[in-house]
Amino acid sequence: MGKRGAGGVENSIHSSGEAGNGLRPGERIDDLLTYDLKIVQSPEVFSFSLDAVLLARFAGLPPRGRVLDLCTGNGVVPLLLTTRTEAAIDGVEIQRRLADMARRSVAMNGLADRIRIIEADLKEYGGSDVDGTYDAVTVNPPYLPVQSGEKKNNPHLAMARHEIGCTLEDVVAACARLVREGGRVSMVHRPSRLADIIVTMRSMNLEPKRLRFVHSRQDTEANMVLIEALKGGKPEIRLLPPLIVYREGRTYAQELQDVFYGHANELRHSSAPAANEWEKEREGEGAE
Amino acid sequence: MGKRGAGGVENSIHSSGEAGNGLRPGERIDDLLTYDLKIVQSPEVFSFSLDAVLLARFAGLPPRGRVLDLCTGNGVVPLLLTTRTEAAIDGVEIQRRLADMARRSVAMNGLADRIRIIEADLKEYGGSDVDGTYDAVTVNPPYLPVQSGEKKNNPHLAMARHEIGCTLEDVVAACARLVREGGRVSMVHRPSRLADIIVTMRSMNLEPKRLRFVHSRQDTEANMVLIEALKGGKPEIRLLPPLIVYREGRTYAQELQDVFYGHANELRHSSAPAANEWEKEREGEGAE
Repeated sequence: MGKRGAGGVENSIHSSGEAGNGLRPGERIDDLLTYDLKIVQSPEVFSFSLDAVLLARFAGLPPRGRVLDLCTGNGVVPLLLTTRTEAAIDGVEIQRRLADMARRSVAMNGLADRIRIIEADLKEYGGSDVDGTYDAVTVNPPYLPVQSGEKKNNPHLAMARHEIGCTLEDVVAACARLVREGGRVSMVHRPSRLADIIVTMRSMNLEPKRLRFVHSRQDTEANMVLIEALKGGKPEIRLLPPLIVYREGRTYAQELQDVFYGHANELRHSSAPAANEWEKEREGEGAE
Repeated sequence: MGKRGAGGVENSIHSSGEAGNGLRPGERIDDLLTYDLKIVQSPEVFSFSLDAVLLARFAGLPPRGRVLDLCTGNGVVPLLLTTRTEAAIDGVEIQRRLADMARRSVAMNGLADRIRIIEADLKEYGGSDVDGTYDAVTVNPPYLPVQSGEKKNNPHLAMARHEIGCTLEDVVAACARLVREGGRVSMVHRPSRLADIIVTMRSMNLEPKRLRFVHSRQDTEANMVLIEALKGGKPEIRLLPPLIVYREGRTYAQELQDVFYGHANELRHSSAPAANEWEKEREGEGAE
């Protein structure tokens, strides 16, 4: 299965290599192995990776309301989020080819009444009737600077991986504009950009509240960071336990096995806000 | 042994409870258990804690030159730093009583030619002949907001623990002013203040470069953060492996046993810059 910049952590959710079902050349249907979800992928165009799964199992979500996933790619995050919230979920993707894949996955899972895929540039998506209406926003943006290799070889993968269509600042600005006061923005990114992420978020009234670093092993540097911010929140971060991916050899840690292969719809140590906390914060902290 | 806000992590370096030697009432001499270092402490006035030891074993230090420790307390950080660098070390402490303890510890260890203790307010220490002259600055500042309890009970401990004499912004400003371009500033603090620390550092041209979070156990939230910034550095952070304090029960992890009881003068996973990297960065990155 392909990677989308997971920094050396491999995705081992297995492909079930089916055919038919309106698939285009090179595409296949993969089994998400959890909640009977399936997804259309293509190694040459887009395959989701570990970072998207972790984001979907980390993000703070309202029990209902409106949720937005930016840079949604083939829609893996919205699909996984349906196991955690009854909210209406919008997924925004700039690439027509990927938005099309995402829509077919949504239909295939019978989730067209809960997920809407919108083909749009996140810098332009929204407007006075949409801005500030989402309770939560998730985003797994392109990580890599535009200068670094591979741009010309594959335009689809390049756009998903490199900051070609949007910079980190564009992404944070879109999140800050689209989420409501007291709503949450969750992002997965590279730890090397941590200072940029925190400085940019705070400058746009998104206060970082929960941070979790992902390490392949306990003695290696982190290769991903999961970060959640509260629009208009007070400055105080909770630094969650490290997420160690591998136990020994190539065996996933139990916490990950539970979300990959089991029916855990949330990381064990996420400490994401519970439903009643959402409402409390909506009136309390977020309203300050 | 006393604590100075280590957030639930206990210091277990044992007291050897000696008397005499010019000790004042309530004071005792503790054995640092490493490199034959001894230190004057007093539970009622000031005792160092785990955070100071970790800072001293984490900080990036030049092989020689000039090093400054702010909020030096009873001088534990300068004492430990002598095992890692031949630099001349200055320790600045605002409280006369603590500066006096620190000076006696320095003399007791025969290190008066390498460590100078200066009684001063970090907001005022310096001047045109001192500012920008230090190759490295370390600081273990007071963590707690002024509002929170215990202020009146013990003025010495209160000042060391609470932001009475200096705020986080004062501390970062002093570091930024006193360190040279291309020099390093290392700090230990609470993870809850991470966004404040990063935003303040960057606003003062100190770019965060190395981060390490300290967790009591692998499945608990971090209660300390070690952070190193490079004056004038490029934005890119290395997120080091988590520092897990306890292995099982109350047994320290091997990495900590090595620095507490052994002759390791640096944390195993610190990745502090080696001597030749210091010089390279002095000319390269720091000079940009």
